Order: sequence, then structure tokens, then C-alpha cells
Amino acid sequence: MAELNFGRVLRHAARYSDDVAIVDLGTGHEASYAEHLGRIARACAAMRELGIAPSDPFAVLAGASHGYVELWRAALAGGGVINPLNTRLAAEEIFYILNDSGAEVVFVDTTHAPTLAAARERLPKLRLIVQLGDAALEPACDLRLEDLLAAAGATQALPAEPGEDDAAVLMYTGGTTGLPKGVVLSQRAIVLVIHRMAMAYPIEPGMRFLSFMPLFHIGGISAWGLLLPFGGRSVILPSFEPAAVNAAIQTHEIQMIGAVPTMLALMLEHESFASDALASLRLILYGAAPMPPPLLSRLMTLFPKLALGQAYGMTECASTATALTPQDHERGGEILRSVGRTLLGVELEVRDADGVSLPQGEIGEIYLRCDSLMTEYWAKPEQTAASLVDGWYRTGDAGRVDPEGYLFLADRVKDMIVTGGENVYSLDVEHAIVSHPSVRQVAVVGIPDDTWGERVHAFVVCDPATTTENDLEAHARQTIAGFKVPRSWTLQDAPLPLSAAGKVLKRTLRERLT
Amino acid sequence: MAELNFGRVLRHAARYSDDVAIVDLGTGHEASYAEHLGRIARACAAMRELGIAPSDPFAVLAGASHGYVELWRAALAGGGVINPLNTRLAAEEIFYILNDSGAEVVFVDTTHAPTLAAARERLPKLRLIVQLGDAALEPACDLRLEDLLAAAGATQALPAEPGEDDAAVLMYTGGTTGLPKGVVLSQRAIVLVIHRMAMAYPIEPGMRFLSFMPLFHIGGISAWGLLLPFGGRSVILPSFEPAAVNAAIQTHEIQMIGAVPTMLALMLEHESFASDALASLRLILYGAAPMPPPLLSRLMTLFPKLALGQAYGMTECASTATALTPQDHERGGEILRSVGRTLLGVELEVRDADGVSLPQGEIGEIYLRCDSLMTEYWAKPEQTAASLVDGWYRTGDAGRVDPEGYLFLADRVKDMIVTGGENVYSLDVEHAIVSHPSVRQVAVVGIPDDTWGERVHAFVVCDPATTTENDLEAHARQTIAGFKVPRSWTLQDAPLPLSAAGKVLKRTLRERLT
Repeated sequence: MAELNFGRVLRHAARYSDDVAIVDLGTGHEASYAEHLGRIARACAAMRELGIAPSDPFAVLAGASHGYVELWRAALAGGGVINPLNTRLAAEEIFYILNDSGAEVVFVDTTHAPTLAAARERLPKLRLIVQLGDAALEPACDLRLEDLLAAAGATQALPAEPGEDDAAVLMYTGGTTGLPKGVVLSQRAIVLVIHRMAMAYPIEPGMRFLSFMPLFHIGGISAWGLLLPFGGRSVILPSFEPAAVNAAIQTHEIQMIGAVPTMLALMLEHESFASDALASLRLILYGAAPMPPPLLSRLMTLFPKLALGQAYGMTECASTATALTPQDHERGGEILRSVGRTLLGVELEVRDADGVSLPQGEIGEIYLRCDSLMTEYWAKPEQTAASLVDGWYRTGDAGRVDPEGYLFLADRVKDMIVTGGENVYSLDVEHAIVSHPSVRQVAVVGIPDDTWGERVHAFVVCDPATTTENDLEAHARQTIAGFKVPRSWTLQDAPLPLSAAGKVLKRTLRERLT
Repeated sequence: MAELNFGRVLRHAARYSDDVAIVDLGTGHEASYAEHLGRIARACAAMRELGIAPSDPFAVLAGASHGYVELWRAALAGGGVINPLNTRLAAEEIFYILNDSGAEVVFVDTTHAPTLAAARERLPKLRLIVQLGDAALEPACDLRLEDLLAAAGATQALPAEPGEDDAAVLMYTGGTTGLPKGVVLSQRAIVLVIHRMAMAYPIEPGMRFLSFMPLFHIGGISAWGLLLPFGGRSVILPSFEPAAVNAAIQTHEIQMIGAVPTMLALMLEHESFASDALASLRLILYGAAPMPPPLLSRLMTLFPKLALGQAYGMTECASTATALTPQDHERGGEILRSVGRTLLGVELEVRDADGVSLPQGEIGEIYLRCDSLMTEYWAKPEQTAASLVDGWYRTGDAGRVDPEGYLFLADRVKDMIVTGGENVYSLDVEHAIVSHPSVRQVAVVGIPDDTWGERVHAFVVCDPATTTENDLEAHARQTIAGFKVPRSWTLQDAPLPLSAAGKVLKRTLRERLT
């Protein structure tokens, strides 16, 4: 019985030898599958050369590039355990993670090398800083990966297949509250989440995918794994920029993207947008924030052949747990406000604070059980035990399930607002506001209030010259109870601050008010 | 980490509660998912009542019906290990299998009950003969399953989830040569083959499937598992009969079928055929025999929106190993004569008689490694060891692989014809003949010959009044070497004898000539 490991997925992809695997619009690098797999094999050889054993974590601190993708795939092939670092974290947080993961080797781009080099004395485990890319060796770095790849010659041989339960990924999460925790994902988890997503979405052989999400988040990287067994062509931009995305879709006849709703809005609003130019699009996967209904309608009208998928997931489940499938989108109606249903291999329960299952329809904490669940939080047995209960993962998210199994998110459990003794879930309020046609983005938070304990406050991105608080309040009152309607508002033209995963940084917003 | 077991697939399907799960055109039974899952839960309770432990084999000797499907699913839910018996086997073969599997309980339909009842003294392990269906209790049977289901009340509770490596299926194979061997398939194998097929074919949620293949073959049952997680509606005919199949497709707006090429030809040739009436078809999976190119062209012309998939697989791999996907069919050309490429999770090597890998393009024995491989041949450690070599399964089939990985079958290794010192693979010859527009079916065998050792003989189904041996010989000479061209022919109007899996019974044909 062959084991489930990503090395076999890579070997499967070898059949696409002459097809284009990757086009990096940042560096100009383009590679066929044979070339791409060769570079991955040589990156594995480089890791051995650097003293990285298959079970050793190594870190990456870099913007998105083909080199980053190669490091991911070399790790998953059995070259080491990848510890991708969120480039938006404060230096202190990055140092904490590096000391916690114990990575001795960090791969960096030239932008991020100085941060690390300046702090070597605070990173006692750090042994080598390895520079990515073609530039000449920077003083901040010890050596260049490209030189190691060249030294590895022309090998196309991947390392021995990793075991099914071997750690493959060490990805930190939870930086917005408390200390980051390292999520350990096994080879099996990585393979099974590919199965799950490939069964849910209409992935066509040879599909052309444009990547502009960060590669240090599970949401950004999972689409890459999804395309690989089908010989997809992945085109990569270093980051999201509406004009660049619109241009790349047109030039490369892109068929699939993954984005957060705000990005989609920015693409459509940008002067570079022309629906004809995006006619190649066949599949958009989105998630991480509520989709404004007018935006969804506009997408469905502009691109009638487009399949839409909304994903809800988290690092601990190796990405997507529930999805609103293309068929759900066609069906329409109230379920479009949900995050869909569990995909095959995932089970869901809604429980109360004591961990007791609630009757269908009641709001409680979402527990997930899935075949791609994390192994543990790295070196944190107590937090692992608190989060993994009898094989179920406590998400910390609140939600309810309708009779057909569609999951409606309510809030992060700890973000729930208690005002005058009533529980208010910010997503309820956000959905009520975002359906107003002028609203582009919204975030609702609780802020301390002497009278009510907390009061509901809304940050709304719209045109403050034409939209008033009264308009929005009247609109919200049509769909939610009075105690949920925000008592104070911030209307602004500028977008809300987002995490790299595309989630609104509510902590930052709260700090603005206190 | 949740395990891979079919119990979770069934629980996943519970969401489709009110949708129609199954329509049995033989018995008139129709059930929603809630009702179908309830009957499966009660069948599990009945098995416990009958003293069948989760690890105990039980046998089924019956035609296809909803009750048979329920027994399959009850076994896979953890109710027992299903040992489905080929109803076309001789009584002696069935007795051998029952004594080998050790099944103490056999579920039968009224047609097959007498065979078994008459031989009780030869079946020392047989404890109970349980009658399927609604008919009154036959004297040949000990009790009725329906009475046990009724006694189980209204339970919807499935048994505890089986373990990933637990045996789920004990299916006998190889009856045409030597003693049948029991293939043991684990829960994991059953789930992973569903993943693999669902990733390869365009399965739509709620798809309507018509089943007319026997349920005791892996090819006939695997489509059932494929549809279940997507809430498909399965319509079942007791057996293949062209007019009944054509009528059922029209009446039930069937979207998917699985068939052998001969069945498809018979459907199209039948007076009941009208292409408009079959316009609902979206996906045809076929396999087990070469597809005549004129038939394939006709299908693709008649149904331009139809996706076609050709599967090559075997019980030992829990069904499909390689497939010619719908996209391969669209591409067309020489690859249409192949059985496609390995699906994700399957690896293939072509080796010589010593087990050494051959250079790409050479003909040798096909070895497969896959994540759904059988655990063992039941109670046959020597045959297991001979077939499973370092995790690879020796198929006994000969073939070659093209540079892109497409597998071209040559023959069963033991069916290879040696004539005048040259190796002739019957499939090569069959492909050369079947492309003649008058040929409906062909089988090539080697027969003893004093001069040549063996000589190539072809059985051809065509109209002997209008097609001559000379026509066929001239046609074959255009594409194959002279020594491969048949030296003798049997031209007939009647179809060739088929096994229940739809494979031509070459042993029967050879016996006609000797």
C-alpha cells in the first residue's frame, strides 16, 4: 500500500514534462515541468548540503516568487519541514517564531535579509542565511541558493518518499492574539486536502492559474497544490496590485484565481478593468471575509460561465474545510451568505461552551474533524490538548448550521460583542451592512462602553460624500434587531487594514478608537 | 486525525436527506437518502443480530437490486466484510469460494437460493441462508432480511466507524484460470479510489446514474461509491438489456452510465434507440475491452456535450488505475487506443520477466503501485507474495507506455501468442481488426499449430454475408506486421461470450476450436 505523500504528487506531475509549469512575472523566470521538477530536486540536494535533514525545519522570509514555490515543493518532497514566515509580522514576532521553530537555516530575499542579519545575536539557533534569487550575494547573507543549485548539477532525482505521518509544514498562526503557535501538518494532511479541493471544484487539466496571494498563508499556497497533479500552469505576481492582476489575466489568459472579496472589488473598480479582457476566467475561489452581495451579483452577471467557490478553512485543517461550491452559487438565495458545507473528509459540530453539541440552528463554537487535521501545535502540548479534543479541532469561530448543513459564520468566539447583556456576532451585523449598494467593505467591532459594557461600532468603506450614517443605520435595521445595529460609525474612503491572509485587522481598528 | 473509512462517506451523504438516493426499476423500490441510510443502518443492526462481527465475511449471491446495494453499504459502514459472489460461476466454483471465505451467512435472491440450499452438506461453514426482497419466505431460505430490518425499528444510527486498515471487501477474482483468489480490500482502499475517480471525472452534485452492471464486480460497484458523496441519484436495472437501458435513460433523464463497449454498440443498434431520447447523457465510463473507433466516433458525433472516460483497473487496485479522461478523448488521435494514464495515487512500471524495469516504449508486464492496493489474497500468503512485490502489484497484463505516460495494453501475459518464434499480443491484432467499419466485436486467440507452435486466430462479429475474410485480412495488413495477421478466422453474426465483467471469454472461444 503506497503511502500518502507529496513526493508522489510531484512524481505524478513529471508526465507534463514539456508543459509550462510556472511563469514568475516578478523575476521573468519561466520553467517547464521538467525544468521546475529539476530545480525542486536540486533544492532538495541543496538542503542536504546545508545539513537540513528531512525532519528539520527550515524557514523562509521572502515575498512570493518561483524560488519560494520551489522551496515549498522541495520541503514537501521530503527535503525538510518548511516554516514559512509572515513578512508582515513585526521583527520581534519573527524572532520569536524562529527561536520557537528552531530553524537553523533561513532562506530570504534581499528585501528581508537585513532584518534578520541585524539580529543574529538574538537568534542563537540560526546557522545560515541563504539568499534567494539571481542577485549577487548580499553582505547580509551567507550564501546563495542559486550557487547550491548549480553545484547540484543536472539531477532530476527527488529524495526518498517521506512517510505518510512525517511533518511537512510548520506554519505559525494566531499572531493577532497571544503568541504565535506553530501548526504541524503531515504529508498525509497535505495530500488529502488536495483530494478534497480537487473533488469540490471544476479543475481542468492544464488550467492556467494566477497567484497573487502570499505564500506564507495556507490559503495562498493551497491552490498551488491543487493545480499540480493536473498539469496546471501557475503564473505568479509578487503581490496583489489591481492593474497588474487585470493585465496578467488578459496577457496569460488566466482561468483561475484565488482572492479575498476586497481584491475582487478593487480589480473591478480599477480603470484597467474591462470584462472582455477577463473573459478567460473560469473559476474564482474566494474567502476570508463576507462577500458583498452587489459584488457577487456583478461577477455573476459579467462572467456567466464563471464558477465561483467560497472557502472557509484554517491552517489547522491544512486549508479548506467547508465550501460554497459553484453549484451552490448557481442555486443562490440565503445560502450565499453561508460559507457552504463541509467537503468530503470533514465533519462539523456546533457546541456550547462546555463542549456539548447544540441543536441544529443554534449558534455555538464550530468544531471540525477532518482527515487533514494538524498533528499538533509545535512544542505546545497544553495548547494542543486544549484545541484537539477527542480528534475534534476547536476552531474558536462561532456559527450555526442550517437544516441542509450550510454553515453560517457568526464571529470569532472571542470577538463576540456583549452589549447590554445581549450577544452580538459581528458577522451578522457586517452582512446587514455590506448588502447596502454603496458599501465596499465593512468591519464591526465591540468597544468598551460605560453604559452597555460594549457597544457595536462599524467601520465602513464607502463614499462618505454620498452615504450617511443614517442611510446605513436605516438599511441595517431592516434585517437585524435594534440592539445589533451599530451605535457609532466610522465612514471612510480608504480601505480597511488587512492581514496578509486578507482578513480585516480588527485589533488595529479597535486601537484607533481607544 | 480522522481515519479514512466509508462510514464517514455515508455520514457525509446524510445531508441530502430528502433527495432521491435510489430507484430500483426491478423491484419498484424508491428511497430518499434519509430512507436509504436508514435501511443501511438497520441492515447493520440485522448483521449484528445474525452474529456477523465487523471483521466477519458474509456472502451475497443475487442479481443486482437495491437490497444488494444496501448490503454493500452496510458492510462498508462497518457491519461486516462483504463477499459478493459472481452469479455466473458454476456451482462448484461458488462452493469453493464459500468454503474459502468462510462466510457463515449468505444473502440470496429467490433465483439463487435453491443452488445453495441443495448443497448445504457440502458447505460446513454455512450457518444461515437469508432471503433478500419482499417475497414470502422460500423453503430454501432460513429467514428474510426484510423481517430483520423491520425488527430493527427506526434506527438511523450507523455502527462505530471502522478502522482505516480494517478489511471491508473480500472479492474473488481469477476464476477463469486456476482457483479463484479472494482479494481483501481495506476501508482506506475503498475511500481512496473514490477520491481518485472523483478527481478524474466531471461528477456533478446530484448527478443521475443508471446502473446495469453486476454488483459482484469491482467495475460495476465502483460508480456507486463515486456518486454517493455528491448526492447522486442511482437508478438500477437488474441487468443489461438494450431496450430497457435506452428507455430508462430517457425516462429518468440519466446523466451517467458505466458500460463495456459492446453494450454501447447494442444500445445504439437497437430499434429503441433515438439520440434525442438520450440527450440527458453527460458522462459515459467504459472499459474492459477495446473500443471500436467507429463506435467512439459515432458516440462523439451523436452527443457532442458528452464526456467519455475509459478505465483500466482491477479488483486488486479497488478498481480504476489508469483512465483515458474526457480531455484525452477531446484531444483524440493515437491515444484513443490506449487506456490512458495513471490517476493520482497510482504509479506504473513496465518490467521484464525478471522484474527489471524496461526502457520506455518496450512491451512488458505492467506493475502498479497505488494507495488503494489490496491488503492480500485471503489466506493465500504464497500467492500474495508472488503478486505483491515491494509494494508493487504484478498485474499479469502486458503493455507499453508512450513518452507522455499513456498505457497501451498488449495482452494478458499468459495470453500472449508465440507464433514462429515471434511474440504476438492479441490486443494489437484486435485493434487492427476492430477499426474496420463492419466489425462490431473481435477477439484474437492463439491456437496450437504443428508448424508455427501457435497460430493467430480471430473471432469477428460482423455480417458474414457482406464481409469476407479477405476484406478483413487486407484491412489488418495495413496496420500490423504480416506475422501478426490472423491465419484463420471465424466470422459470425452472434455476439461473443462475455464474462460478467464484460470481458470476452477467450478460454471458451479456444475450446470451440480444439
